[in-house]
Amino acid sequence: MRVYQYLCDLYIHSNFALKMKHKFLLFVVLSLIIGTTYAKSNEMKTNSKTLRLIYPQWQGGVVASWMPDIPANDVSRGYFLGAQLLQVLAPESKQQTVEVPISLDMESHKEEKGISGYRAIIKQSKDALDLIRRENPDRIVTLGGECSVSVVPFTYLAEKYPEDVAVVWIDAHPDLNLPGDSYTGYHAMALTACFGMGDKEIVDLFPAKLNPSKSIIVGLRAWNDTNASKERQEEIGVESLSPAHVAQNSTAVLDWLKTTGASKVVIHFDLDALDPAEIIAAVGTDPDGLKIETVVRVINDIAKEYDVVGLTIAEPMPRVAIKIKNMLNQMPLLKE
Amino acid sequence: MRVYQYLCDLYIHSNFALKMKHKFLLFVVLSLIIGTTYAKSNEMKTNSKTLRLIYPQWQGGVVASWMPDIPANDVSRGYFLGAQLLQVLAPESKQQTVEVPISLDMESHKEEKGISGYRAIIKQSKDALDLIRRENPDRIVTLGGECSVSVVPFTYLAEKYPEDVAVVWIDAHPDLNLPGDSYTGYHAMALTACFGMGDKEIVDLFPAKLNPSKSIIVGLRAWNDTNASKERQEEIGVESLSPAHVAQNSTAVLDWLKTTGASKVVIHFDLDALDPAEIIAAVGTDPDGLKIETVVRVINDIAKEYDVVGLTIAEPMPRVAIKIKNMLNQMPLLKE
Repeated sequence: MRVYQYLCDLYIHSNFALKMKHKFLLFVVLSLIIGTTYAKSNEMKTNSKTLRLIYPQWQGGVVASWMPDIPANDVSRGYFLGAQLLQVLAPESKQQTVEVPISLDMESHKEEKGISGYRAIIKQSKDALDLIRRENPDRIVTLGGECSVSVVPFTYLAEKYPEDVAVVWIDAHPDLNLPGDSYTGYHAMALTACFGMGDKEIVDLFPAKLNPSKSIIVGLRAWNDTNASKERQEEIGVESLSPAHVAQNSTAVLDWLKTTGASKVVIHFDLDALDPAEIIAAVGTDPDGLKIETVVRVINDIAKEYDVVGLTIAEPMPRVAIKIKNMLNQMPLLKE
Repeated sequence: MRVYQYLCDLYIHSNFALKMKHKFLLFVVLSLIIGTTYAKSNEMKTNSKTLRLIYPQWQGGVVASWMPDIPANDVSRGYFLGAQLLQVLAPESKQQTVEVPISLDMESHKEEKGISGYRAIIKQSKDALDLIRRENPDRIVTLGGECSVSVVPFTYLAEKYPEDVAVVWIDAHPDLNLPGDSYTGYHAMALTACFGMGDKEIVDLFPAKLNPSKSIIVGLRAWNDTNASKERQEEIGVESLSPAHVAQNSTAVLDWLKTTGASKVVIHFDLDALDPAEIIAAVGTDPDGLKIETVVRVINDIAKEYDVVGLTIAEPMPRVAIKIKNMLNQMPLLKE
């Protein structure tokens, strides 16, 4: 800006004896500088980079027994197909899209240290972080994959915007498990992992920790054997709202967000938060869930007042698609 | 083969005074001819061309009222998304894949002469036939789209193999409607159209007619207001088998196929033939349908004894996918 000031002064105070030709040249240079400066500041405001992250991780789920009418391995890896389908269904965009490489080998599902798919999750978390760091986005929209696909992007954003990020975790379950709990699925440990709690080798991978006191679970209604207890939730200190709390309006979420003092929000949306009477799109089918229009309204109400820097769609389990895929795979002309 | 015989004779009876060099040259020429002839006959046997035809036609359905929980236009065009998803779910293949261009304009659904989407169906049928003729395949696997997507490929194959094609139409419904019936959906007129029956301007487009006496409907169980009556079926003279007829084995279909004298079979598979207790993948949800493994077994049993030259997967209506797509379309970060 000093050059700009200098050129302005030069223009205004330039010797009147200066030939018009020279004055014209000076005017052109000045205009170019002003134009470039304006365009650059505008780009910074509106064209900040959003990355679309396809993250078909499935190893964090232990869900095969819940869908006995589908072959177990196809259910386990069903999140992989789920991510592929979300990519087809998501609105077309010029956003840069990258995909985290995910193993489809059933060996990669092996439990270790009380966590399903332990080694694969470590490798894939590293790969996801490398990919994100390489692209260095300002915002990330993630298409999963089971719930743990939020951990890497959210902790990356926590590092980028220190102490300025609140978490809205839309989910039927608390996702506050820890290694050693009876259920070994890492997807049920996703929110605790965001807080830097859990297996040391895993949580040491993450760039930063999110703050439990700046996090809220919306749509929570299922505490059961496989999920963390209410006591665990209170101990960690995470607020929650039931589907009924947001059925009429988003005030409860917006009021809570004010208390965090954050200007940015990351939103995790587990499709099992939805009411199975309206749509069965995830693994969980706990009754009395959120209506689609409620979730859409809550998320958009947040986006009106806060800078949503992270959004994850998680837990797609495409039951019908898996059955059709398996069927087509046995058809003459198609399988050849 | 005359040239080949001549060269053989020439080789055997050649003057012994012929220099060895000349005999060697003759041997090389002979070998080349034999090799080329063998390779060509082998290619005809095993490498005949199968075309994968993506045919997302939706204008032949009038189905919006049957899914009141989804916006009407999204249901109508749901077959379009259905075809896209079938393409993702179909096994990967080196088959050449072509897609029939289909309008998504709701105007193209306009009824005329008692047929929904009349003008679009005429245009799209022409386009489909042009595409197929350009590729000149020996076999066609079609991913629809509503049921009428079988008409162009099947009548093309009827022309290619005159009087040698039997039709196995796997469907809960007879699809034997005619213009003037109360239900105007062209997909319910698909089998009659294959027989060259119906609107003159439409059926005149097709290269040949299939023979009702060489056609059978498998899984038929729904005669209702929107579908042709049993009387119509008898009048046209098409055999049928209920789901119970093929539940244990495929004998009824195979025995019937023998009576046709055909060596080739085209198979139409409307997903509504399946039992909704096992999978809801189509528009129709008539109870007591075929099990997935029954359909897979029947189709493969046919393929063991006959040359399956046409296979269509039709009527995919991806209810959950439509709801997810509409939801994602309203999300910040994704819709931007």
